Amino acid sequence: MSKAWVPQDPAYETRVRESFSRQTHMATLGAAIVFIAPGQVHLAFPYAPQFCQQNGFLHAGAIASVADSANGYAASTLAAPGTDVLAVEFKINLLAPAQGETFLACGQVLRPGRTLTVCQAEVYATTGTTERTLVATMLSTIIVRPTERGSAV
Amino acid sequence: MSKAWVPQDPAYETRVRESFSRQTHMATLGAAIVFIAPGQVHLAFPYAPQFCQQNGFLHAGAIASVADSANGYAASTLAAPGTDVLAVEFKINLLAPAQGETFLACGQVLRPGRTLTVCQAEVYATTGTTERTLVATMLSTIIVRPTERGSAV
Amino acid sequence: MSKAWVPQDPAYETRVRESFSRQTHMATLGAAIVFIAPGQVHLAFPYAPQFCQQNGFLHAGAIASVADSANGYAASTLAAPGTDVLAVEFKINLLAPAQGETFLACGQVLRPGRTLTVCQAEVYATTGTTERTLVATMLSTIIVRPTERGSAV
Amino acid sequence: MSKAWVPQDPAYETRVRESFSRQTHMATLGAAIVFIAPGQVHLAFPYAPQFCQQNGFLHAGAIASVADSANGYAASTLAAPGTDVLAVEFKINLLAPAQGETFLACGQVLRPGRTLTVCQAEVYATTGTTERTLVATMLSTIIVRPTERGSAV
Repeated sequence: MSKAWVPQDPAYETRVRESFSRQTHMATLGAAIVFIAPGQVHLAFPYAPQFCQQNGFLHAGAIASVADSANGYAASTLAAPGTDVLAVEFKINLLAPAQGETFLACGQVLRPGRTLTVCQAEVYATTGTTERTLVATMLSTIIVRPTERGSAV
Repeated sequence: MSKAWVPQDPAYETRVRESFSRQTHMATLGAAIVFIAPGQVHLAFPYAPQFCQQNGFLHAGAIASVADSANGYAASTLAAPGTDVLAVEFKINLLAPAQGETFLACGQVLRPGRTLTVCQAEVYATTGTTERTLVATMLSTIIVRPTERGSAV
Repeated sequence: MSKAWVPQDPAYETRVRESFSRQTHMATLGAAIVFIAPGQVHLAFPYAPQFCQQNGFLHAGAIASVADSANGYAASTLAAPGTDVLAVEFKINLLAPAQGETFLACGQVLRPGRTLTVCQAEVYATTGTTERTLVATMLSTIIVRPTERGSAV
Repeated sequence: MSKAWVPQDPAYETRVRESFSRQTHMATLGAAIVFIAPGQVHLAFPYAPQFCQQNGFLHAGAIASVADSANGYAASTLAAPGTDVLAVEFKINLLAPAQGETFLACGQVLRPGRTLTVCQAEVYATTGTTERTLVATMLSTIIVRPTERGSAV
């Protein structure tokens, strides 16, 4: 499903890592980039008791936060130099309780565009050496804009 | 738009507050219940530099986290005693940069159901004494289940 | 909730009606414009046995079709002259079976933008003189572009 | 991605075909089942000038209609005997103009459940012998219920 996208910006990886390093929310959640390729970004994050819902599972919003960043940066890998990405909207289905020791959000581009890029992320939970479980899937619309701070959609 | 829903559980407020107090993610984000009524829950939360995206605005996932809880607890106000609520899915549109000093996520029930309840949340940003800005809207599907820990959808 | 939006194109109504008249799918479904105002378009359509699902209710896709057009034209009322609108994506919750004699899809702008406009539609069913029932709600992202035929997002 | 799901109802294909034959909206749109397997249903449908939007492409609602049925019947292949399926909600991204001679909506189950099943559909357009184009992707939540006519969610 993931085509061999050709990046427009040879320095896409540096650009993604630099922007990611400014997302304090990702640092707070303990998320780290574990894979970058044209059209794909994977982010790993641990279970942490301070980001849970009422039953001790990771809160859907914590899962959504990392999936949103995975999709945004997947879009960014294919964007032109000097651009920034912003989520316009996303929809997430929570497929299983977010139980696990570590989580992986795999974002990939479904369709890149000059203005809008559509991405999908899958979030997996892993405990010990067991097979990973798909806990969520997210479909996102992302806008690509010339870099500037603070402007609206 | 918000009808005068009749709660099935006279102790709905206690139940909601007790469950909310177990959501560590809400405590981490600094979110607090500021309004509860049948079919409605409003959660306030502050700007905080540790939950931001690359341009210094609150991360869409932080906004989505609180909106998700507002919708879940709005659904819970109308649920039967001895039930718990879980988000099945949600979709959020980010309408303006999440700039502001304080934020308010207003969740309300659009349609309650024995199994599924549909809710909508609006998230507003406020700075000083200026008029509040609508920064996001979320449409959620929530499942109501007998209370038990850890079960899947 | 619906603000007093100021249209950029004084001839917005003519533009909307002309475009709507070219939507053969709306004519096929029997949909008609019953209300146009800045930021709002209401479309009425009848029950028809040829657009049903397996239990004799209107198919969710028929409901979604008219809601999508209501939202698109609500966005169009606020767009600049010489522009066209296209749905980027939408999400619909089906709240009750689409039972009724006549249906009304009420589209309204939540947030207009130069590039993207976010709209929400509510679809009601009516039978005889009974109170109308909310059967669906749709949240849509719409792109506004200079008029041209056939271009992609 | 599509696992080897085991159907609970050995007669799932008959059940799906029987229900599909009662969907008058699918007959009206000219949609036909071209593939059924556990967890998957593919529906083909032609371009038709009476289901178009203002620029002569198939209306997003026509595309959504067939994708919704493909997802619903994909869910149905894994449901217990004596059950019916209803879409609770869906979200569709329109990825390219719905230009083409023939269209194919490929629905598949992402996660089956006793109550709720989550499915994803991809819709492709084909013209002549050219490579097919992905024109839309839909993520759906479907409720499985004991067969009965007319009941709400």
